Amino acid sequence: MSSTDYKFEGWVGLGPEAAEGKMVWQEFEPKPWEENDIDIKVTHCGICGSDLHTLRSGWADGWGATNYPCCVGHEVVGTVVRVGSHAEGDLKIGDRVGVGAQSGSCENKDGKCGPCANGLEQHCDNMVMTYNGTYANGGTSYGGYSTYNRSPSHFVIKIPDGISSADAAPMLCGGITTYSPLKRNGCGPGKSVGVIGIGGLGHFAIMLAKALGADRVVAISRKSDKKADAIELGADDFIATAEDKDWDTRNASSLDLIISTASSSKMPIVQYCGLLRLHGTFIQLGVPEDGALEIPASLLISKGLKLGGSFIGSPSEIREMLELAVAKGVKPWIQERPMTDANQAIVDMENGDARYRYVLTHEQ
Amino acid sequence: MSSTDYKFEGWVGLGPEAAEGKMVWQEFEPKPWEENDIDIKVTHCGICGSDLHTLRSGWADGWGATNYPCCVGHEVVGTVVRVGSHAEGDLKIGDRVGVGAQSGSCENKDGKCGPCANGLEQHCDNMVMTYNGTYANGGTSYGGYSTYNRSPSHFVIKIPDGISSADAAPMLCGGITTYSPLKRNGCGPGKSVGVIGIGGLGHFAIMLAKALGADRVVAISRKSDKKADAIELGADDFIATAEDKDWDTRNASSLDLIISTASSSKMPIVQYCGLLRLHGTFIQLGVPEDGALEIPASLLISKGLKLGGSFIGSPSEIREMLELAVAKGVKPWIQERPMTDANQAIVDMENGDARYRYVLTHEQ
Repeated sequence: MSSTDYKFEGWVGLGPEAAEGKMVWQEFEPKPWEENDIDIKVTHCGICGSDLHTLRSGWADGWGATNYPCCVGHEVVGTVVRVGSHAEGDLKIGDRVGVGAQSGSCENKDGKCGPCANGLEQHCDNMVMTYNGTYANGGTSYGGYSTYNRSPSHFVIKIPDGISSADAAPMLCGGITTYSPLKRNGCGPGKSVGVIGIGGLGHFAIMLAKALGADRVVAISRKSDKKADAIELGADDFIATAEDKDWDTRNASSLDLIISTASSSKMPIVQYCGLLRLHGTFIQLGVPEDGALEIPASLLISKGLKLGGSFIGSPSEIREMLELAVAKGVKPWIQERPMTDANQAIVDMENGDARYRYVLTHEQ
Repeated sequence: MSSTDYKFEGWVGLGPEAAEGKMVWQEFEPKPWEENDIDIKVTHCGICGSDLHTLRSGWADGWGATNYPCCVGHEVVGTVVRVGSHAEGDLKIGDRVGVGAQSGSCENKDGKCGPCANGLEQHCDNMVMTYNGTYANGGTSYGGYSTYNRSPSHFVIKIPDGISSADAAPMLCGGITTYSPLKRNGCGPGKSVGVIGIGGLGHFAIMLAKALGADRVVAISRKSDKKADAIELGADDFIATAEDKDWDTRNASSLDLIISTASSSKMPIVQYCGLLRLHGTFIQLGVPEDGALEIPASLLISKGLKLGGSFIGSPSEIREMLELAVAKGVKPWIQERPMTDANQAIVDMENGDARYRYVLTHEQ
C-alpha cells in the first residue's frame, strides 16, 4: 500500500457557462475507494468534443443532462500511485496507464450481462462514463482535467513502451472511437475507406485506416484548407464538397466504408451514401444536437447499403489499437497545452483551432 | 427449334387507372428475339405489391414513372416453348421454369461489371425489370399476366421437381426478397428474428427464417387478427403494437435481426430498433411512397445498430432458396385465381385480402 496523502483537484464546471472557458479549479471527492480500484497521478489529458458537449449540458435530450459540479476529461494518462488488493491487470505503482471514456460497468458480476461477457463493456446497461457518471457504490466519476483520477482497474489500460504519454492520451477516446468501427466493418487490404470531417476523430480515422491496411483512404471535408494535412496524415485522395464540382457523381460508388464524424444531421447524407459501393456501410460517430438523420429507404434498398453507429470501444479493443499504433508507428498530431490553461484550451477547441488534438499537460 | 406460332397477349395497363382493376386484355410485342432468349408458355403468375405500385405509376419520384402500355407480373412460372441457340442453363422445351422480378442485366459482357461478376445481378447498372423495363436491344419487358413471356436465359430458373408451379411462382419475388436479406444477415441457429408486417413478404420471411434455422421468429403487426396465421406459419411469438401494452419495453433488446415489410416511413422505427440487441440489424424491404426514414443517430450509436435495405435477389440465390424450400418443405400460403379474373384479383390484393399471395392461373 502506498501513501494516500494526495488531493483530488481539477477544473470543474459548475453550470453550462463552464463551456465558455469558465471552469474553476477546486477539490472534488472521488468515488469511495474499493479494493479493485486504481489511483492515478494524472500527467496528461486530451480534450475531446464530448467534454464541451457535457460542460454545456448539450446532450440533455439524448444521453441526459449534466450533473454539476463536473470535472471532464476522458483521455487520461498518468502513473499508478495506489493499487487495490483485488485490482486486475497486474498493475504496479509507477506504471504508466490510461483511462478512456468509460471507467465502469457491471463487469458481468451476476453472470448475466451479454455485453460484458462478450468484451463489449461500453454497451453494458450499467456502464459508467469517466465523468458525469455514478458508480455502483454511489460515488461520482470525475475526469482527467485534474491532479488525480480513481478508476476501477478493469478500465485502466497499461500504455505500451513504444508510445509517449502525450500521444497515448487522445487515442483513448478519439482513437478508439474510430478504430473500433474500422476494425468491425472490415477495414483492411482491398478496401477503400472514406472519412468525413477532418478534426480530432477524422485525423485518427485516416491514420488508423491506413494502419489497418486499407488500399485507399479518402478524406472528405467541406473546404480544401485541410487537404495538405489529410494527405500528410496518409489520405490517398481528398474531396472538398463545397468546392469540387460534381464531387458526388465523380466519386460515385467508389468506397466500401465511410466513417462520418460530422456533427450535424443536416449533412448531405444522400450524396455521401452515393459514394458507397454496393453493400457499402456508412458509420455515424458524432451525435448531432440538431435532430434525427433522414434517409430514403430507396437509397438503402437500391444498393443494399447499411447505415450504422458505433460507440467508443472496449478495454480489449483499446489494447489492440495501442499495439497496432506501436507496430505501425501511428503518431497522433497533438498540441500540448499546460493544464493551467485548460479554460483557454477548451475555447480554442470549440473554435476548431486544434490540429488535431489538444493534450493538457501537467508541469513535471 | 420449336414452332413460334403463338401470340403474346396479356392484361395491359394503359394508364394509372389500371390499378383500380381496369387492365385490358390485348396483344403486345415482346422484345426482339435473341439467341440467348427463352420463350415461356405462362401457366402461373403471382400478384406482387410492386405490380400495383407500377400500374398506378406510384414510384414516379423514386424508380421512375411507368411507361404505358405495361403488362405487369414478375412471379412467372410456365413451360419452355423455345430455346435460343446460345441459351445458358441447359434448358429444354417442356421444362418447368420461372422468371422473377429481374429479367436482364449486362451479364458482365465487358468484363467490368462488379455486380454481375459477383452474383449480384440485381444491382447491375443495366438491370432490366421483368416489366416496365427496356432491354439492350431496344425491346420492352412485359410481365407474366400473359400467355407467353420472353426472357434472357440467364434469368430463367428451372423449378425443382419437389415444388408445384403455383407454389413456386410467388417465391420468385416475394420469397427471394426476404430470403436474400435473411441469409446475408446471418439468420440461422442461435438467432432471433423479427418480421414486421404479416402480408405476402412477411409470411415468406417467417417461413424462410425458420427454414434457415433461426431459434426464434417473432411476428410483429399492428393488430392481433393475423396472430393465429403467424403462429401456424412458424412464428414463435407475436407482438400486436396497437394492442399489447408496453410492447416495446417488454420486448426490448430481444432480436438480432428485423426484416421490415412496412410500407410507410411513419412506422415507429425508434421503438422497433429498441427491440434489437446490441449490434442488431434492421432491414427495410418496402419502399414507402411517403418520404424518408428518420432515425436518431444516438439510437444507432448507443447499441451499435445498423439500418439497411435489400433488393430482391440474384438468380443463384433464387436457386438456393428453391432448394431450401424443397428440403425443408416450405409451402407458401396461396390462393389461386383464374387469369381471366386478374382485374378483380388486383383489387382484392390492394384491399389486403390475400392470405397471403394470389397466384393467377391459366386454365389447363
